[in-house]
Amino acid sequence: MRIAICGATGYSGIEAIRLLAPRTDVTIVGISSETQAGLMLEEAVPGFRGFAVGRLRLLSLRDAVTEAEVVILALPHGEAMRVAPELLAQGKSVIDLSGDHRLPRDAYESWYKAESLSDAYADAIYGLTEWNRAAIAKASLIANPGCYATCAELALLPLFERDVAESSQILIDAKSGVSGAGKKPTATTHYVEADENFFAYKLGRHQHTPEIEMTLREARRRQTGFDESVQVLLATHLLPIKRGILCTAYVKLKEEMSGEALRDLFCARYEGEPFVDVLPYGVSPQLKWVNGTNRVSIGVYLDPRTQTAVVLSALDNLIKGAAGQAIQNLNVMTGVNEQEGLWFVPAV
Amino acid sequence: MRIAICGATGYSGIEAIRLLAPRTDVTIVGISSETQAGLMLEEAVPGFRGFAVGRLRLLSLRDAVTEAEVVILALPHGEAMRVAPELLAQGKSVIDLSGDHRLPRDAYESWYKAESLSDAYADAIYGLTEWNRAAIAKASLIANPGCYATCAELALLPLFERDVAESSQILIDAKSGVSGAGKKPTATTHYVEADENFFAYKLGRHQHTPEIEMTLREARRRQTGFDESVQVLLATHLLPIKRGILCTAYVKLKEEMSGEALRDLFCARYEGEPFVDVLPYGVSPQLKWVNGTNRVSIGVYLDPRTQTAVVLSALDNLIKGAAGQAIQNLNVMTGVNEQEGLWFVPAV
Amino acid sequence: MRIAICGATGYSGIEAIRLLAPRTDVTIVGISSETQAGLMLEEAVPGFRGFAVGRLRLLSLRDAVTEAEVVILALPHGEAMRVAPELLAQGKSVIDLSGDHRLPRDAYESWYKAESLSDAYADAIYGLTEWNRAAIAKASLIANPGCYATCAELALLPLFERDVAESSQILIDAKSGVSGAGKKPTATTHYVEADENFFAYKLGRHQHTPEIEMTLREARRRQTGFDESVQVLLATHLLPIKRGILCTAYVKLKEEMSGEALRDLFCARYEGEPFVDVLPYGVSPQLKWVNGTNRVSIGVYLDPRTQTAVVLSALDNLIKGAAGQAIQNLNVMTGVNEQEGLWFVPAV
Amino acid sequence: MRIAICGATGYSGIEAIRLLAPRTDVTIVGISSETQAGLMLEEAVPGFRGFAVGRLRLLSLRDAVTEAEVVILALPHGEAMRVAPELLAQGKSVIDLSGDHRLPRDAYESWYKAESLSDAYADAIYGLTEWNRAAIAKASLIANPGCYATCAELALLPLFERDVAESSQILIDAKSGVSGAGKKPTATTHYVEADENFFAYKLGRHQHTPEIEMTLREARRRQTGFDESVQVLLATHLLPIKRGILCTAYVKLKEEMSGEALRDLFCARYEGEPFVDVLPYGVSPQLKWVNGTNRVSIGVYLDPRTQTAVVLSALDNLIKGAAGQAIQNLNVMTGVNEQEGLWFVPAV
Repeated sequence: MRIAICGATGYSGIEAIRLLAPRTDVTIVGISSETQAGLMLEEAVPGFRGFAVGRLRLLSLRDAVTEAEVVILALPHGEAMRVAPELLAQGKSVIDLSGDHRLPRDAYESWYKAESLSDAYADAIYGLTEWNRAAIAKASLIANPGCYATCAELALLPLFERDVAESSQILIDAKSGVSGAGKKPTATTHYVEADENFFAYKLGRHQHTPEIEMTLREARRRQTGFDESVQVLLATHLLPIKRGILCTAYVKLKEEMSGEALRDLFCARYEGEPFVDVLPYGVSPQLKWVNGTNRVSIGVYLDPRTQTAVVLSALDNLIKGAAGQAIQNLNVMTGVNEQEGLWFVPAV
Repeated sequence: MRIAICGATGYSGIEAIRLLAPRTDVTIVGISSETQAGLMLEEAVPGFRGFAVGRLRLLSLRDAVTEAEVVILALPHGEAMRVAPELLAQGKSVIDLSGDHRLPRDAYESWYKAESLSDAYADAIYGLTEWNRAAIAKASLIANPGCYATCAELALLPLFERDVAESSQILIDAKSGVSGAGKKPTATTHYVEADENFFAYKLGRHQHTPEIEMTLREARRRQTGFDESVQVLLATHLLPIKRGILCTAYVKLKEEMSGEALRDLFCARYEGEPFVDVLPYGVSPQLKWVNGTNRVSIGVYLDPRTQTAVVLSALDNLIKGAAGQAIQNLNVMTGVNEQEGLWFVPAV
Repeated sequence: MRIAICGATGYSGIEAIRLLAPRTDVTIVGISSETQAGLMLEEAVPGFRGFAVGRLRLLSLRDAVTEAEVVILALPHGEAMRVAPELLAQGKSVIDLSGDHRLPRDAYESWYKAESLSDAYADAIYGLTEWNRAAIAKASLIANPGCYATCAELALLPLFERDVAESSQILIDAKSGVSGAGKKPTATTHYVEADENFFAYKLGRHQHTPEIEMTLREARRRQTGFDESVQVLLATHLLPIKRGILCTAYVKLKEEMSGEALRDLFCARYEGEPFVDVLPYGVSPQLKWVNGTNRVSIGVYLDPRTQTAVVLSALDNLIKGAAGQAIQNLNVMTGVNEQEGLWFVPAV
Repeated sequence: MRIAICGATGYSGIEAIRLLAPRTDVTIVGISSETQAGLMLEEAVPGFRGFAVGRLRLLSLRDAVTEAEVVILALPHGEAMRVAPELLAQGKSVIDLSGDHRLPRDAYESWYKAESLSDAYADAIYGLTEWNRAAIAKASLIANPGCYATCAELALLPLFERDVAESSQILIDAKSGVSGAGKKPTATTHYVEADENFFAYKLGRHQHTPEIEMTLREARRRQTGFDESVQVLLATHLLPIKRGILCTAYVKLKEEMSGEALRDLFCARYEGEPFVDVLPYGVSPQLKWVNGTNRVSIGVYLDPRTQTAVVLSALDNLIKGAAGQAIQNLNVMTGVNEQEGLWFVPAV
């Protein structure tokens, strides 16, 4: 497989290269960086020193993709939609890590506060692997889910596919490490500002909200035929850590259910899923169990006093929330074992 | 004022001494430590080296309180209730930082999984200063509120006093720094386990839950006469920081209200309160704005899509959530300016 | 005292305001910010919300200083030397936190890689309070020492004043928190880059080197008449913390000495110094004992195997290493008690 | 290869399992834990949930080693020397991560303050792979080097093998993450005590000192025949991070040398070494470039002002400083490609 990675020096791009570098069945034929083209990768990202991949030259996007069969776009939103059509026209497959292909035009423009190219969404398959595997296998353009969206959707899918959750007042209290904010230095990501601090941001306005709503609605419709709009309040918070997302989702159930029954529903849904770990009832996932891996760890709890179902889900935002899921989708698209290159035990 | 501090080498005890040490109107006449009695304070807590207070000798509880008019109990729960009656009988005032005097016997035994002495609760005034100031001024025994409870109650008081919130499905997603877990080394508080990690704990079982429910219920009853039990789901999480609590509370309103009207209600309630800062609408509080201070910072947001009121509140768990509020109550009890010794601008 | 603080929204400027705000004997008559002039302080630095000082308006430098008797310059180097002469000509006193007035022209240009105005150095008194107190009391322009320099100089002063240390191969392995790098977001100060990381920087090239060498040389000359150039290798490292500097200094002694005798020399030198704490022999200072205070904590150790004297010193880079020492100097200059407004017990 | 890992739930033991788990040429036939025997690994260390290795049962040491050809001892010092002889007598190979087999009896007892079994040292080969590869290949008992020792020795080996460094006043200012202190909760490793803190400990008394001195002396003797005792001052400091060691070593050279010549000497020594990366002259290694890998990153600098050679070295204390080097040695001992299972690009 000949792969190009565009936006190779951002955190998702670096992670994609890091995960693909050891693979013998993949050749990285091009890497691009708008700002650092001309440098060797190891000059731009010194962690790559001493690895063969570190001697790759950063190219312009055009040069990077020439020989690629599959192009991973780890570009800022607004860029991916501009380059994808031509790549597809050249017969390449595209996995887009940005939000450019996840939403219909109206939703995109409303949530991203940016112009959409009209057909960006229509061509793409939403790349939540555990949900869309069959379509992904045949896709040529993958809209890789957002990091928060992956975490929230995997937490709530079983409830919506089985239609046991109310459609409104789904509250997702989400917390993410700073790498989710990208590599560009800003006042928010300054060490002195983020360290020993914690706060909510983009309350009710986070751009991953509509893809969560669409996915949950569509998941229920697919399984049950019942179609109703879904309302999610996504409250995102910034954790003083490098990586990891934890979602605490609060949902009203349509009918009474025991805690164990609730957990059984998750176990049944994710049985055989290599990257989803449903914890014993009452056990809460920890970021250190998923960071450095492509896994999602899920814990469920049914509060007897408020009759609220709580689903906790944890993942590494740069792996299962970005580059890892991209490679999982790449594996599915290319018929390789889905776990290839993604088998990591978390470190201490 | 002659003060004794019992449990002087725990985090709350240290903080109480630190805050009282500069005051010229207060004399610390005794400090106690069960495990380190005999040492000078600066030997047990080297940060006190070079300060006069550091040369105080740690005593047994009995010896520490002899000359005190007011005793601050910074003891583990289960201890305070054993020593308070005798201190009161000797005519001393007592401020108890533990949970021993906050709950009726049944609730205490159910939530703390420990035996209660029958009359611990009956004698005490709940020390949420902004709510109970008049009673505190006349009290001889203060049940100082829990750290999470203080943060959650100040976030929700205005809604219940004005009876605009539903009584059930009050969801409080709370996050605390590690000092809240106390000074005793455990697997959970080991640096390598807590650093770069994040997780929920005691989901639905945190012992501060009932005092929040009682306070909100009673606050509404006092103001409106309307009495109805209140159900809170408190979901506590451990942040990889030293100090600070942020609560994100989600509440259903009884009737429609604009976001600004919601904020006005908070501004009206807390007008003139020196330690409560209601932020402009849509601004979220940050821990760095409150850590090191006795303040609570509150932000409100009304989600138009899910009709959910979100109230964010932040405080320093060792100051406003423990020793600072104890001293605020001490000031009220003794007729001193309430802000005395508690005026701190947060550091960078 | 009417004080102006220029560069009020950088970390040192903020800290100066924070430390001065509670004082009743000081009036802050002006604060300036080149980039945020026009805003209220609490808009630029939300931690100041709710404090009277937060309602001060950020002005241009010219407007900020109009009514001031003393001006604290917390500006980038290169700026202070441009504005100081006019301020002095207007009869104001100036405390300059930058490096602009610490070095002779040649040394400045060589170490700062920037042009000097010829007479910047000649007019200034070096503001290491514990060393230069008498001169500071009469000064109108203070060159406040660098953060690393303060930490290293206080560690080595007793050895040079008593002429017991060799002049060459003085190795200072220094480690600083990220706030020392300033508030401007850069790749180095990005949370994801600094967190869980550690490295040396500017090895042998740090601009605080020459002021350390000059001060140690001059200190020895003053006490003993013996004049010899001093060579320091300053190896600065970046710690993943907000604040604090620890220096581990390695020195060859001219003659054999016991560890206790070495410590006695420090005790004698710093007896009565309110902000220097000489630890018992063999005890190492910790940043948590000095952060948040204006103190330096010093530990000494004499290695019997390599005959090396090791002096460890710790301070808060924004307080004793910058704004705190500036205020200490302000107190000395204006005849106020030197400890005024600088009495802090370190927090947990 | 049939491997047993004893002390499987300490940080080094966990890391050894984590690194070996993906290998198809290695079978983990037993894992032991004194305190948690009987549990499945994934119950004791939840990060292993969902991996085959997580279903291994923790056994007593005796049961764990029964079928093993090679036993990795990740036990506290004092334990390994008790069990190694019997394992060797049974024809098993042993890799000991503790200090039990690194030092002659006198040195051990003096530095470890503990009794030695007389012949623990005589039987063992010191496992600094880059230095002792030939002997390791034939060894049945490996004394795996200490974490600080590995970092310091690889920094200084080229200087001693080429006899360009003075034997005395070798100053190693070393900084380690908290995992080096082990998994047992203590006051020192409590999050609230270690976070935002930094300090030196065991100054001049760290037990890795004598193995560094012995290795450097022997390395020089082997290459040059010149035998002279070597004196090292090891000043260890605790960094508020999970993992990583950085050593800043200061050495006097016997004769003048240019910086580039100094670096050439390192490049020549480590040419072809897969796990040693000599950086360009003047570039300082960063922990983030080595954490998560088995690599050492080395930077050199020659200070023209003090004529001091500075060598900076960085490694992951749990990998190259412990379990990774153990596996590197295992590979060498068993004739497998030395890099097998140790090829990791560092993560963002």
